[in-house]
Amino acid sequence: MPAIHLETIDRTLKTPLYLQIAEQIRMQISDGRLPVGTQLPTVRELAALLGVTRLTAQSGYRELQSGGWIESTVGRGTFVIATTDTDAVRAMVGHDHSPDQVMRDISRLARLTGLRSMAYAEPDAALWPGADFMRFFQHPAANDSALMQYGSAQGDEMLRVELVTLLAARGVAATPDDVIVTSGVMQGLSLVTATLTHPGETVLVEQPTYLGMLHVLSSYGAHAVGVPVDDGGVQLDALEAAIRQHHPRFFYTMPAFQNPTGVCLAPERRARLLALAEQYDLYLIEDDIYGALAYDSKPEPALRTLDPDGARIIYLSSLSKVLIPGLRIGYMVVPPHLREAILYRRQAMDLSGPPLLQRAAAHFLHRGRFKPHIERVTPKYRERRDELLRVMAQRMPAFARWTKPHGGFSLWVTLPAGCAPLDLHHRALMHGIAFTPGEAFMVEPDGQTHLRLCFGGLQPELIREAITILGRLLEPGAARSPVRLRAGVDERPVV
Amino acid sequence: MPAIHLETIDRTLKTPLYLQIAEQIRMQISDGRLPVGTQLPTVRELAALLGVTRLTAQSGYRELQSGGWIESTVGRGTFVIATTDTDAVRAMVGHDHSPDQVMRDISRLARLTGLRSMAYAEPDAALWPGADFMRFFQHPAANDSALMQYGSAQGDEMLRVELVTLLAARGVAATPDDVIVTSGVMQGLSLVTATLTHPGETVLVEQPTYLGMLHVLSSYGAHAVGVPVDDGGVQLDALEAAIRQHHPRFFYTMPAFQNPTGVCLAPERRARLLALAEQYDLYLIEDDIYGALAYDSKPEPALRTLDPDGARIIYLSSLSKVLIPGLRIGYMVVPPHLREAILYRRQAMDLSGPPLLQRAAAHFLHRGRFKPHIERVTPKYRERRDELLRVMAQRMPAFARWTKPHGGFSLWVTLPAGCAPLDLHHRALMHGIAFTPGEAFMVEPDGQTHLRLCFGGLQPELIREAITILGRLLEPGAARSPVRLRAGVDERPVV
Repeated sequence: MPAIHLETIDRTLKTPLYLQIAEQIRMQISDGRLPVGTQLPTVRELAALLGVTRLTAQSGYRELQSGGWIESTVGRGTFVIATTDTDAVRAMVGHDHSPDQVMRDISRLARLTGLRSMAYAEPDAALWPGADFMRFFQHPAANDSALMQYGSAQGDEMLRVELVTLLAARGVAATPDDVIVTSGVMQGLSLVTATLTHPGETVLVEQPTYLGMLHVLSSYGAHAVGVPVDDGGVQLDALEAAIRQHHPRFFYTMPAFQNPTGVCLAPERRARLLALAEQYDLYLIEDDIYGALAYDSKPEPALRTLDPDGARIIYLSSLSKVLIPGLRIGYMVVPPHLREAILYRRQAMDLSGPPLLQRAAAHFLHRGRFKPHIERVTPKYRERRDELLRVMAQRMPAFARWTKPHGGFSLWVTLPAGCAPLDLHHRALMHGIAFTPGEAFMVEPDGQTHLRLCFGGLQPELIREAITILGRLLEPGAARSPVRLRAGVDERPVV
Repeated sequence: MPAIHLETIDRTLKTPLYLQIAEQIRMQISDGRLPVGTQLPTVRELAALLGVTRLTAQSGYRELQSGGWIESTVGRGTFVIATTDTDAVRAMVGHDHSPDQVMRDISRLARLTGLRSMAYAEPDAALWPGADFMRFFQHPAANDSALMQYGSAQGDEMLRVELVTLLAARGVAATPDDVIVTSGVMQGLSLVTATLTHPGETVLVEQPTYLGMLHVLSSYGAHAVGVPVDDGGVQLDALEAAIRQHHPRFFYTMPAFQNPTGVCLAPERRARLLALAEQYDLYLIEDDIYGALAYDSKPEPALRTLDPDGARIIYLSSLSKVLIPGLRIGYMVVPPHLREAILYRRQAMDLSGPPLLQRAAAHFLHRGRFKPHIERVTPKYRERRDELLRVMAQRMPAFARWTKPHGGFSLWVTLPAGCAPLDLHHRALMHGIAFTPGEAFMVEPDGQTHLRLCFGGLQPELIREAITILGRLLEPGAARSPVRLRAGVDERPVV
């Protein structure tokens, strides 16, 4: 029997046995224990070895075959075919870690066979209410030709009615007239930046912050200054100092489950943040995109609830993280005196979003599908967050520190200067692990190494596997055992 | 029998008899011949009067009832209930004719009961392949979770493959890699303006031109200078003079079936336009959105065909006019050296469009549904264009001139200074007729009165009716007989 060493499979796990088999073999290919050309046991041998049925062993191999890791030829046997094509991967990956370059690298690598990606702060495709959602395209939309017409720049009226309910769940009192539907939070951030800033003007952001916002600011020529974040969110003394120094147009913040750190603004900081905005006549841009994804206690309501006139805070959220990213449906509530200016720019940007999708989303929400969906996915994401924290504690070196997110999809790792290989990002990709290097989220480097690890998209087993490999890469003198990665064609945004 | 005078109905028309009855009565309500409170004949009387069945007469009344024009009460009879609520209409309509204000006015009035709108350069909702299109949401999309993911900024790959075929039909040779999918031509224009201009810089546009482009330019702070258009498109001597004087960043042009005039760039002007662009190192922005809607001979291929390197022309088109506006699917082919910059800005603008809609459109095109659709709608639009030209010749005053469009949806009327009431736009709305005042399309007024009349959205009978009323309003001392208009809530963009 060919040389292979498999740990006993665990019948108490929810993961099907064939997937456990596939994962173990995949991991050994990844880390070089099973080099290319290794002959694997026959299905009969594998079944006997593990005490599983032949069907299970067969299914495990089929999984690996469809992933491009192994090949079975009748009469010859089953072989590892993953090649050590590190040059191809290196060629695909850029050599600087600027937000744009990292966005491009990870986009290019997004569909690599067998990549365990913790790079995207996004929901798991397997948990989307896809088929259920598609049903809402049928009866109402098919025959309402108004939905095939140009829509209003503000967005479908029925959808705005439903979004009022989502807003209320976050404590935000609004009428449908107050709501502007956008093409994701990204368009909202674009509209805000275009409306409130001129090229060369300064805005404040958290450090680290959402890399998409850094992209928006750069594209509009705004100058970003970062204000440090700790476990209680943005540091207010530093914020006040930055306001005094830079006279910014606005401060962009994610008070709930911040991307990339996962932290929340501490309750005792909320009132003072508002007071600072008042005192220095500053807009607060509140990005609440993860607000509904709470895994422990109920989160604080939106910051916007502290601003009853709504004159100080521009509130943004989206269905991308809580429902389906590809709908490209975000929404915003803006100060009344900015409404016309924002709608004017939105109309110039793309006239309107697609009414058909907006109405389908409206029906989905109207039929009460949102809450059960959140209740269904919350325990899944909590389980992944828990597993990530558990494995981190076991596998990360002593010098590493990380945040303890209570919601959202992101965990932020900090390694002191000199404690991580310079090319950690590249090495991890060679082992089939993707994360987002912290530099992408920083306005300026702080001398430490940071990693954003996203746990939303991976099964607990894969999280365990990825962190185990990552832990090994952080050990001094870790081996470099490259793995073959096959490139896809799509470029997707990093979120 | 109550006083009513109906012309004989025409059994040779394709329009059903009951609709002819409803239209005649509606028109008499509109122009004041049947004031509010007028009692109409009973169904039996009406049937006898016109020599139709009672069912037909009844259906005519039902049509008017559902439009809010008349009311039937058992035992009392049928009465005109449209009120002379001119104050409400006046309140809804602004007092300046700037592009933005006109866009708002017409949007607000768009769903007024009984409005005969020639204000939108858009396809007829009744001709959309709506149900056929919706079918493509079912099998492929429902189970492909990749389509619910964030898409690439460049657009769905399968759609780009299909768009290459549409481009080829206009003579444009491109590969899927060359194509960028946008949220309508509008987003393409936004991207071009954001990428190529800084605030305060000058660009050249045709005079008149697409009002959405004026909106884009204003929103990015670009300075627009208009170059006159005649029956052969832009006047090249004037263009060259403007280039020398203003050193513009680009010239925006619609060589095929221009909006709002419907004219095409004369074949003999094409080569010189390209030569001018070369000579003065200028980009040409070619908006070909109406290019596939030709009603007479085959139109010239896109201007882009004269620029084989594709370094000089940014080509834009869309599915909005030829398929379904609400899909918000446009596309562009840009010079290779601008591609990255445009994609960078697109990603900052909204990350990506909705892959679900893009893929459904791809399937629709892939299954060969586009060509039969165009072949089905072309004769309809031709018939409307023909009817418009016929009625214009009969009903317009001698001092009016107008273009003879060979495609697209727009016809451009010019009235010498002093020959039209100052408030023609308002008066027409009071009579239930909407057009777009020419000022909306002009960078600066030229002292004449212009009207854009769009024929795509109205049946020939309604075109005849609208032009008849318009002709009357242009007669000296035309009566002002206001009509009740009921407002909808939606605001739609004027296109």
